[in-house]
Amino acid sequence: VPSPTTHELGVLLATLVVVLLAAKLAGEAAERLGQTAVLGELLAGVLIGPSALNLVHESEVLHFLAEIGVILLLFEIGLHSDLDELITAGVQATAVAVVGVAAPFLLGFGLARAWDFPTLTAVFVGATLTATSVGITARVLADLGRLEDVSARIILGAAVIDDILGLIILALVSGLARTGQFSVPVLLWTLLTSVAFLALALVLGVRLAPWLFRWITRMRVRGVLIVYAVAFCLMLATISERLGLATIIGAFAAGLVLAKTDERAHIQELLHPTADLFVPVFFVTIGLKVQLGVFNPAQAGAGPLLLFTGLLAVAAVAGKLVSGLAIYQRGVARLPVGVGMIPRGEVGLIFAGLGLTAGLGGPRLYASLVAVVMLSTFIVPVWLRALYRKERA
Amino acid sequence: VPSPTTHELGVLLATLVVVLLAAKLAGEAAERLGQTAVLGELLAGVLIGPSALNLVHESEVLHFLAEIGVILLLFEIGLHSDLDELITAGVQATAVAVVGVAAPFLLGFGLARAWDFPTLTAVFVGATLTATSVGITARVLADLGRLEDVSARIILGAAVIDDILGLIILALVSGLARTGQFSVPVLLWTLLTSVAFLALALVLGVRLAPWLFRWITRMRVRGVLIVYAVAFCLMLATISERLGLATIIGAFAAGLVLAKTDERAHIQELLHPTADLFVPVFFVTIGLKVQLGVFNPAQAGAGPLLLFTGLLAVAAVAGKLVSGLAIYQRGVARLPVGVGMIPRGEVGLIFAGLGLTAGLGGPRLYASLVAVVMLSTFIVPVWLRALYRKERA
Repeated sequence: VPSPTTHELGVLLATLVVVLLAAKLAGEAAERLGQTAVLGELLAGVLIGPSALNLVHESEVLHFLAEIGVILLLFEIGLHSDLDELITAGVQATAVAVVGVAAPFLLGFGLARAWDFPTLTAVFVGATLTATSVGITARVLADLGRLEDVSARIILGAAVIDDILGLIILALVSGLARTGQFSVPVLLWTLLTSVAFLALALVLGVRLAPWLFRWITRMRVRGVLIVYAVAFCLMLATISERLGLATIIGAFAAGLVLAKTDERAHIQELLHPTADLFVPVFFVTIGLKVQLGVFNPAQAGAGPLLLFTGLLAVAAVAGKLVSGLAIYQRGVARLPVGVGMIPRGEVGLIFAGLGLTAGLGGPRLYASLVAVVMLSTFIVPVWLRALYRKERA
Repeated sequence: VPSPTTHELGVLLATLVVVLLAAKLAGEAAERLGQTAVLGELLAGVLIGPSALNLVHESEVLHFLAEIGVILLLFEIGLHSDLDELITAGVQATAVAVVGVAAPFLLGFGLARAWDFPTLTAVFVGATLTATSVGITARVLADLGRLEDVSARIILGAAVIDDILGLIILALVSGLARTGQFSVPVLLWTLLTSVAFLALALVLGVRLAPWLFRWITRMRVRGVLIVYAVAFCLMLATISERLGLATIIGAFAAGLVLAKTDERAHIQELLHPTADLFVPVFFVTIGLKVQLGVFNPAQAGAGPLLLFTGLLAVAAVAGKLVSGLAIYQRGVARLPVGVGMIPRGEVGLIFAGLGLTAGLGGPRLYASLVAVVMLSTFIVPVWLRALYRKERA
């Protein structure tokens, strides 16, 4: 039985204490300095991680707690969202998503080709820049109390569609790497399963959940509502993951569905403290992954690598900013949507890892791609906050 | 970086879904059948575990979530307890604890000697029967709404003292197994550190925590109160674990300390849904460990093993029941206290594992000891509930 020794248990508990305390202290400092709390949590991760104080190391348990954190975050955001309004924003969101996938792909591909990387490697570089990670933006919008804005709905909708597009690109690119050719059936199957899952989850969920939760609230045992709500969320997250989509898509869908039940307000209230505990673990863990050593200019060959990384970062930012131009609705600011689409996250890191495993580009290109993903994640809280502050002034 | 693959992530999420759903369904069934929910959760663990449906396997992540569960349970119980009343119950609780350690040790030792086990092995068998696991009893008392009773305070206090006594026996027995002789300095050091930790945690905590938490409530960032309260609890649990005490002793002390702050009610309210989520994971995981195959009478040599196990179980139950006779206060029922001391848990399993590793007794004796620990855990919810029901009638 793989039971942890008491020593491992002590280390894991101590890790969790350090992560929680660092998250809240840094979050508080960030807010007092006029930034959002999430920026503090990201920096707290860098500070306590291997690059600086080396207090905390990544582990399977920490990764799992972080995953629970981002799942609960998107569940909570789903609970606060209105499915009908999201559907209304659908066409607009699709336009933003398509531009926001195509533009960074083309920019990344072009830059890598100009840097004399082979075509297949260039495809991987382009693909790495495509997928928006909605966690950061959603958290910043929540911190600023702007989740109900039209632009927030467009960003959330676009991020979901983005994930489906990213999945198709992933299927395409992994097939390319393995066989050297496209597989149309695989592509169609991927598209079909992901769209069918979302449609089924939402259509069936909205019909069945209110009935299911009325039955659950008649149960006597302590804690049924929170346990069943979270189990429902984790179930959709698991199915979503099995289909190759991100877990957070399923969690977001679960939130949208339960928002349609009579228990919405009650579930929100019960979920709040649990989310408070786990969400910071996710953001601190992102910070932990940053390896400051990669940016060290004293290392051999660091100059060209830094230049390439810088240009790639510009491509990554510009490509998503352009997606804001796909806004045709009146009265919706384009810049916040473009900035909100910038963060890349786990999916970008998965692409980069696939490329590394397939022997495309090697560890230096990998380090460069990871740095760009990190950078895109770190600038958004500052930028978005500044935009909204300016707008209010 | 030991990051879980997406497949492992999916399995872990699915495991958690099954554990949560099974816990609440079985808990509800148990309550409707007039039993406490915790019995349903234990049986749910057996049912979904390797012995029956084989839906869920133990893993490091599940063990950690279970540990968080029992830590939050004792933290919550500490928050609902009154330190002054616990100290008042101190002498009485010590009497119960001493009898409740000595009697099962002597009975277990005597039985093992009568069964022709060597003296050192018999010491291990006796030691395995000593430590009360307060989780089950505390949960049953909470389910029945009897946590405020005098007898509940005596049981909780006795369990804490029990753990310190168990620690001393553990130091004694491991020294015996390693060197063949007692080490008085190690014994004294163990006693000193554990008593000093509890005294320091409680005395300093009660003075510093109210000041600390008044400062924390002036912070602006979301979720500070729940995060700092849980971090405080995990910190004391970690220190407790590092000193060789069970994590739950630190968690219980943290609850007692925070019960003295102005934020007590607020922390209780915020902690409630999080505890609802994690506590069942602990009890389901205990059920998972049960290997029904051990009891299979068709196996060779199962007859004598079953007989020995049965007699050992009687010794385990009788030894703790006797501890109720140490009640000298008027108006306190002896039987509920004795029954409440019966459950053995993690500490008993640690003793048994130590004996196995040291080559004392072998796998059959180990299976027997584990079965006794399990049995002692499973009978208490039924017995205690029946006692309180009879008392009310």
